[in-house]
Amino acid sequence: MLESLKHQVYKASLRLVEQGLVIFTWGNVSAIDRESGLVVIKPSGISYDEMIPADMVVVDIDGKVIEGELKPSSDTETHLILYRSFPEIGAIVHSHSEYATAWAQAGLGIPPLGITHANYFNGEIPCTPPVEQKPEDANPELATGSVIVETFNKMNLDPLRIPGVLVYGHGPFCWGEDVIRAFDHTVVLETVARMAHHTLALKNVSPVEKQFLDRHFFD
Amino acid sequence: MLESLKHQVYKASLRLVEQGLVIFTWGNVSAIDRESGLVVIKPSGISYDEMIPADMVVVDIDGKVIEGELKPSSDTETHLILYRSFPEIGAIVHSHSEYATAWAQAGLGIPPLGITHANYFNGEIPCTPPVEQKPEDANPELATGSVIVETFNKMNLDPLRIPGVLVYGHGPFCWGEDVIRAFDHTVVLETVARMAHHTLALKNVSPVEKQFLDRHFFD
Amino acid sequence: MLESLKHQVYKASLRLVEQGLVIFTWGNVSAIDRESGLVVIKPSGISYDEMIPADMVVVDIDGKVIEGELKPSSDTETHLILYRSFPEIGAIVHSHSEYATAWAQAGLGIPPLGITHANYFNGEIPCTPPVEQKPEDANPELATGSVIVETFNKMNLDPLRIPGVLVYGHGPFCWGEDVIRAFDHTVVLETVARMAHHTLALKNVSPVEKQFLDRHFFD
Amino acid sequence: MLESLKHQVYKASLRLVEQGLVIFTWGNVSAIDRESGLVVIKPSGISYDEMIPADMVVVDIDGKVIEGELKPSSDTETHLILYRSFPEIGAIVHSHSEYATAWAQAGLGIPPLGITHANYFNGEIPCTPPVEQKPEDANPELATGSVIVETFNKMNLDPLRIPGVLVYGHGPFCWGEDVIRAFDHTVVLETVARMAHHTLALKNVSPVEKQFLDRHFFD
Repeated sequence: MLESLKHQVYKASLRLVEQGLVIFTWGNVSAIDRESGLVVIKPSGISYDEMIPADMVVVDIDGKVIEGELKPSSDTETHLILYRSFPEIGAIVHSHSEYATAWAQAGLGIPPLGITHANYFNGEIPCTPPVEQKPEDANPELATGSVIVETFNKMNLDPLRIPGVLVYGHGPFCWGEDVIRAFDHTVVLETVARMAHHTLALKNVSPVEKQFLDRHFFD
Repeated sequence: MLESLKHQVYKASLRLVEQGLVIFTWGNVSAIDRESGLVVIKPSGISYDEMIPADMVVVDIDGKVIEGELKPSSDTETHLILYRSFPEIGAIVHSHSEYATAWAQAGLGIPPLGITHANYFNGEIPCTPPVEQKPEDANPELATGSVIVETFNKMNLDPLRIPGVLVYGHGPFCWGEDVIRAFDHTVVLETVARMAHHTLALKNVSPVEKQFLDRHFFD
Repeated sequence: MLESLKHQVYKASLRLVEQGLVIFTWGNVSAIDRESGLVVIKPSGISYDEMIPADMVVVDIDGKVIEGELKPSSDTETHLILYRSFPEIGAIVHSHSEYATAWAQAGLGIPPLGITHANYFNGEIPCTPPVEQKPEDANPELATGSVIVETFNKMNLDPLRIPGVLVYGHGPFCWGEDVIRAFDHTVVLETVARMAHHTLALKNVSPVEKQFLDRHFFD
Repeated sequence: MLESLKHQVYKASLRLVEQGLVIFTWGNVSAIDRESGLVVIKPSGISYDEMIPADMVVVDIDGKVIEGELKPSSDTETHLILYRSFPEIGAIVHSHSEYATAWAQAGLGIPPLGITHANYFNGEIPCTPPVEQKPEDANPELATGSVIVETFNKMNLDPLRIPGVLVYGHGPFCWGEDVIRAFDHTVVLETVARMAHHTLALKNVSPVEKQFLDRHFFD
């Protein structure tokens, strides 16, 4: 069932560690088959050395496990809200990469400071407000997904033009039309997080203008 | 004698260098067998290329060598005080990792700024006050161990909730129920030290709240 | 046709990724055969895993494709303006390396702070003003090339003494008499960008003097 | 002639690149045979891929080439002054490592901020004043060596207690009783340069006290 998606999700999960975007089993990857509405997601808590493609878990859009022996990732609910709210996206990658997490911990969006950013993100990469959670919430991950969607709605952002977000005090979630693109956005987000950090250490700078952003994004 | 612990201590010592947490033969690892009260610890001053698991030294809880040709690590006394004072812990890892050491040299604890921290440390990772040493002290390592224990007592900290500390002007000591966990805490401490450093460079931030800490630690 | 240049351009393109100066297919390399006036340049949008030396594109000095199945790099026009304006140079390398890009995003030239810089660049590595682009411009890359040449003309700089530049909000372009030297200047520019960044974090410093620069450049 | 020293100097030269302390052929290594007064030094301008141990050049204490086809390193004169002035030292390593060079470019000595520093350097690692050079000086390297020796004399420093120095606007020279120790001091100097840089970014800190320094140096 969904063997190709399982393989892609599996490979991207390993690449998260190989490319230094997470350590241990932090982070997670999923992809959706829009025809059937089924989502393939990394299982929870299994070491990457032991994990095989067949361990990827299949859930339906409401989170019910359809196939798989292992528990789906603890961030599954966040992924599902994003798939329900952003119908254009086909895959999601969550990491704890070093500089992106620093921006998330500072509660600051990453301003667009140059072409590297503008080629992939058509404006600031926003940071959500703190995730508020009421003690009676059964599932804390609901709150994370909701705050992302609210942030995009309030700022009137197109998830394919701004294919990623920082969750306050947590780290980045990126997405795209497929796993390759969601993963690339994760790598670019960490890269521009580093570059913007180093830029601000040199000088107070202003973000580039809308015209510059559009020229390089739509190129 | 204690072959499995020796193997674990040996492997973790090599991993300290492989993962860039120390250079040369800096740092050390130990584990305790709580039944017999015996401690296995890395020997002192031997190059990691030549070291084999059988070189690990066995000492009793008072530091008397029970087995082993080589001298136990020069930090042995610090490890022993921690085992005597924190009966819940089973292993200790000491490193000189780059950013953790920078925080220790600044004399500052690492504030909890996000989930990465909160998943492993249920609050600030404290920094001890300077280690005071009287010229007549026979063993300077006694002072290091004592200042850690005093810090935890004064701040009323649970060593399993805050499984690590920064020793002022020195570097981090981490621990856990076993060698794997003590090592993981060492890796996480360096990771959050880097992230917190980059975060503070972006903005003056406030630590996250108790409720946030508890939610992610006990998850 | 121009097999040796193709091989050099191909190899330098791969080295950009291997040495961490770009990710994905960012960046590009070209070389000119001054006798025939033909330019060999990296093709656009092809993955480095699939690329072979024969994929390098040959264009004439006005950008007309002379040989090659693939589209030449999207930065081709920038390279051609530089070859037309700086007759002494034989090769160009464009990267998005991390610290050089940070300086470019800050809109600041890299001041000469020591021998490492002075051995390769006989003064500040300038940053261009923002690239102004009129909506009616058919080819945005023309503007990038022109702003580099104008910067060098206004500052009366010799392109062999200052073999590189930062394009505002974009990143570095370096050049040299041949591919090896253009590549070396790219590596050195990133190195001095890092060192100057760390230096400024320690102290407000003054650039070194003209005599110092000349002594080390002409050595 | 001096085959063992040649091998050691050769190996340490390669390790400079392998460990990221220099790029290209920057940096150099030498060792002295105190009995004969002969010095083995890396040749100048040869690529490390082609270099073999037999390429190491033997010079006498006044710089006359005794054996070797290639030109001795351009820093030879600096090495020789140090051997003449510091009779206790047996080897010298010069690098352009990133953070050490940043401190040298800032014109600042590296303050002793913790045990990592104190175990190897018994106080601040000094930075020389700018190297003044008169236009009529035949050999600019003379000036570099002299300014190091003057710095140590004026500050009344013991070269075995402070086995390294930063040359203003240039980078570090380290030494020791043999090649292994001179190389280790080079690695430690870069490590403490990084740690001290990160420490100062967190807080204005005071160097550790003399008693602390002595305790850890003489341990």
